[in-house]
Amino acid sequence: MDAALLSAPARTADSAAASTALLTDRYELTMLQAALRSGAARRRSVFEVFTRRLPEGRRYGVTAGTGRVLDAVEAFRFTTPQLDWLSDQQVVDEPTLAWLADYRFGGDIRGYGEGECYFPGSPVLVVEGSFAEAVILETLILSILNYDSAIAAAASRMSAAAGTRPLIEMGARRAHEQAAVSAARAAYVAGFSATSDLQAGFQYGLPTTGTSAHAFTLLHDSERDAFTAQVESMGRRTTLLIDTYDLAEAVRTAIEVAGPELGAVRIDSGDLLMLAHRVRRQLDDLGAEKTRITVTSDLDEYAIAALGTAPVDGYGVGTSLVTGSGQPTCSMVYKLVARASSDAPDAPLVPVAKRSAGAKSSRGGRKWGARRLDAEGVADAEVVGTGPVPAELADRQLQIPLVRGGEVVGREPLAAARERHIRSREQLPMSATQLSKGDPVIPTEYVTG
Amino acid sequence: MDAALLSAPARTADSAAASTALLTDRYELTMLQAALRSGAARRRSVFEVFTRRLPEGRRYGVTAGTGRVLDAVEAFRFTTPQLDWLSDQQVVDEPTLAWLADYRFGGDIRGYGEGECYFPGSPVLVVEGSFAEAVILETLILSILNYDSAIAAAASRMSAAAGTRPLIEMGARRAHEQAAVSAARAAYVAGFSATSDLQAGFQYGLPTTGTSAHAFTLLHDSERDAFTAQVESMGRRTTLLIDTYDLAEAVRTAIEVAGPELGAVRIDSGDLLMLAHRVRRQLDDLGAEKTRITVTSDLDEYAIAALGTAPVDGYGVGTSLVTGSGQPTCSMVYKLVARASSDAPDAPLVPVAKRSAGAKSSRGGRKWGARRLDAEGVADAEVVGTGPVPAELADRQLQIPLVRGGEVVGREPLAAARERHIRSREQLPMSATQLSKGDPVIPTEYVTG
Repeated sequence: MDAALLSAPARTADSAAASTALLTDRYELTMLQAALRSGAARRRSVFEVFTRRLPEGRRYGVTAGTGRVLDAVEAFRFTTPQLDWLSDQQVVDEPTLAWLADYRFGGDIRGYGEGECYFPGSPVLVVEGSFAEAVILETLILSILNYDSAIAAAASRMSAAAGTRPLIEMGARRAHEQAAVSAARAAYVAGFSATSDLQAGFQYGLPTTGTSAHAFTLLHDSERDAFTAQVESMGRRTTLLIDTYDLAEAVRTAIEVAGPELGAVRIDSGDLLMLAHRVRRQLDDLGAEKTRITVTSDLDEYAIAALGTAPVDGYGVGTSLVTGSGQPTCSMVYKLVARASSDAPDAPLVPVAKRSAGAKSSRGGRKWGARRLDAEGVADAEVVGTGPVPAELADRQLQIPLVRGGEVVGREPLAAARERHIRSREQLPMSATQLSKGDPVIPTEYVTG
Repeated sequence: MDAALLSAPARTADSAAASTALLTDRYELTMLQAALRSGAARRRSVFEVFTRRLPEGRRYGVTAGTGRVLDAVEAFRFTTPQLDWLSDQQVVDEPTLAWLADYRFGGDIRGYGEGECYFPGSPVLVVEGSFAEAVILETLILSILNYDSAIAAAASRMSAAAGTRPLIEMGARRAHEQAAVSAARAAYVAGFSATSDLQAGFQYGLPTTGTSAHAFTLLHDSERDAFTAQVESMGRRTTLLIDTYDLAEAVRTAIEVAGPELGAVRIDSGDLLMLAHRVRRQLDDLGAEKTRITVTSDLDEYAIAALGTAPVDGYGVGTSLVTGSGQPTCSMVYKLVARASSDAPDAPLVPVAKRSAGAKSSRGGRKWGARRLDAEGVADAEVVGTGPVPAELADRQLQIPLVRGGEVVGREPLAAARERHIRSREQLPMSATQLSKGDPVIPTEYVTG
C-alpha cells in the first residue's frame, strides 16, 4: 500500500470541506444565547468526553475518530445561508447570530491518541475554552467519537480474532453512505487491511479492493463466459466468485480459465468452514496451491475465530463491522467538569458535577489519564486523576495535545493511529482479546490531586 | 410547522450537492470494466432491491430513504479529481474511465413509495437500464435504503407506542454526524414530530427543538441563576431541565422564576414513571397545571409504552432511535433478476437467479408488489408477482414511478411520505404494532405471470 497517501492532511473530499456547524443540536445554540445574555458565556470552562461504562461484556474500548474531530472543528464555521436560516427560523436572536458569524474555536483540546484503548472514566477528550466556544462543539464531537469508536472496538475484536490473516472492510451497503466512509477509516485504525469503499480510498488513502459480485456471473450466458470476461479484464491474479451455481464446477472452470496462477477464489455463502476445506483440496488437486481463498458471508469476530483452523487466507466483513457487532454506538458523553468561579476574567476554575440521583452523575475537575504497567510491562490499571500527575505515571500519560489556542497541533497520519492501537492492545492483559463477555480488563482508579 | 419547507425539492446542503459517485464499492467499477470489455455491459438489466427477511421479531418494515436515493442518483457524476484518483490508483482502465466521465443514469426506477410498509420479498425498488448504468448504483442505493429504513422501522414502533404524544428525535450525538441527519428525516417519515438536529431542519425543513442541558445549569452559580438566565433569554414558554440537583427543589425554583406559565419541564434521569407522577402533582399544587412534562432518558419503544399511563406530554428519543432499536440496518440486497438474453439490442429479458445452496438464493424476474385487503379493508397479504398484475390488485399496487429515462419523476414533499406511512400502517392488522417479537404480520404470496 501507498504509505504516503496515509499521511496527513487527508485528501479533502467534497463533503469534508463543507461547514460542519449545523451538525449540532439546537439546544447548544439556545444555551449559548442564554449564556451570552447572562454573561456566563465568557466563563472559562472545561468539558470532558468520557464513558461511564463499556458496552455490555466488552473488555476494552478503542478511541477512534480523533483525526476527524480535528477536521470537523476546523470546519465549524457558520456560512451565510446557515445564519440566514437560523435567523428565519428564530432559533437564536441577533446578538447570538452576530457571535456565531465570527465563530472560530480558539481554545485547547487534549485527548487520547487515536487508536488508544480506553476504559470507563477515561478522559478521552478534554475541551477547554470559554463556555460559549466549547459548548457548541458537543454534538459534533460526540457524533464522531461515538460512531467511530464503536466501529473501531468491533474491528479490534475482529482483527485480534483474525491474527495475521488480512481483513477487508466491505460494509458500505449496510451503513449510511457517509458513515460507511468513516467506518472504513475506523476499521483501518483497528487493524483492517483494506476497504471496498472507494470514497474511503479517495478521502483517507486507504487501500481499496474488490472484483465482482453474483450479478456479473448472472449477466453472462455462462459462468465460464463470466470468468473469462473477468480474467481478460483483470488478469489471472484476480479473485473469482465461485458460489453462484455449483461450487465444485466453478472451481474447475475457474482454474481452466485462469490457470493455476489464479489469485484467489471467494466464497460468499454456505458453511464456510466445510466449504473452505473442500475448495482448498480441490484447488490443490488442480495444482493451484497458491490460489488463495477469501470468505465473505455474514462474518463477525466469532465466525472469524471459528474459521481459525480453516484454510482461509482472508476475510471480508460487512454488516457486523459497520454496526459495531451488536454495539453500534458508544455511550460517550460531553460533560462540563470545571468552570470559572465567577464572571471575572481571571477567576479560578472550580470543579462542577451533576448531583441528582440516578446513574448519570459525574466527577468534577479537569482530568488526566494514565495507564499503569506492572513489572512485566502489562497494563494493570487505568489511572484517572485531577491535579498533578504522580511521578511514576509521568511517562504513561495518555492524553496528547490536539488543539492549542484554536490551532490544530495533533494531526497525524492514519498509520500512526493504527500503530498506536496495536501497541496499546498488546500492552493489555491477554484476556483483553477473549471474545466472551467480561468486565473491563483493567480497573479504573481515581486519584485526586 | 412550516409545510412549505417540507415541499420538494429539499434545500440543498453543502454536503448533499457533492458528487455521490465514490460512495461505491470498488467491485462495481471492476465489474463494469470487465463487462464493458466483454460487451455484456450493454445488456438491458433489471435489478431489484428486496429483503429476504425482516429483522428478528419485527412484524413489518418501513421503506425510507427513497427521496434521498433520487437526490443521490442525480448527484452520481464523476468529477475530474475523482477520475484522476481512479486512474492513479489503477482501479479501472482508460476505456472505463472515459465511460465514467460521461456517466449519467438514463434508465428507469420504480419503487415502493417512501413510508410504505414492506415485507420479506417486497420489490421495494426496481432499477432498469443497461447493466453498466444500473450495476454501479448498487452500493449507494443500498446504503441509503438500509440505513433509513432501519431507522424508520424503529421510529414507527415508537410512534405507535406514543400514540398522540409527540416524539422528538435527539440522537445526533449517538450516530455518525451525517447519518444523524438522515435519521432525523427517516424518523419524521415514521411519525416523529421534530428533531434536535439543526442540519435536518436546514436541509429537509424538519421542525427543530431544544433548550438546554445540564452544563447550562452547572455553568451558573446556582440553579436559580441558570433558570433565570434561560427564562430571560427564551421566555416563560421555554422548557427547563430539572434534574441537575434536586428535582423537587428545581420544580419549586422553576415556577418561582417562570411562574405557572412555564412551558415545560424536562426530566432526563431516574425512574421516569415515578418522577413524572411526582412532578405532575407538584406542578399542579403550584398552580402550573398547563406546564408540560417531557422525558428524555434512554427511551425506546418499550419504555415509551410503559409510560403510557404516566402524566407525560412528550418524549425525546436518542440512542435507540438512531441505532434502529437493536436493528441498526436492514438486510436489503440489490440483485440482478432479469437481463437481455443476448448482446443484441432488442434481445428479450430473461429471468436470472443465484442457484447455489444456502440461504442466499433469489427469485428471478421483474416484479411488482401489491397489498391485498380483506373485506374490512385490512391487509391480508403482500402479493409479489411477475407478469401482468391480476385485475383485483390493479389499484393495490405499491410501486410508483421514481425515475423515467434518467429524469426524476417521483420527488414528493416529505409530508407525503409521512402520510403514506400512517395510512399504510393503519391498514395492517392490529397486531402489527404489538411490540413483542412476532412474525411478519401478513404473509408474502408469489404469483407467477
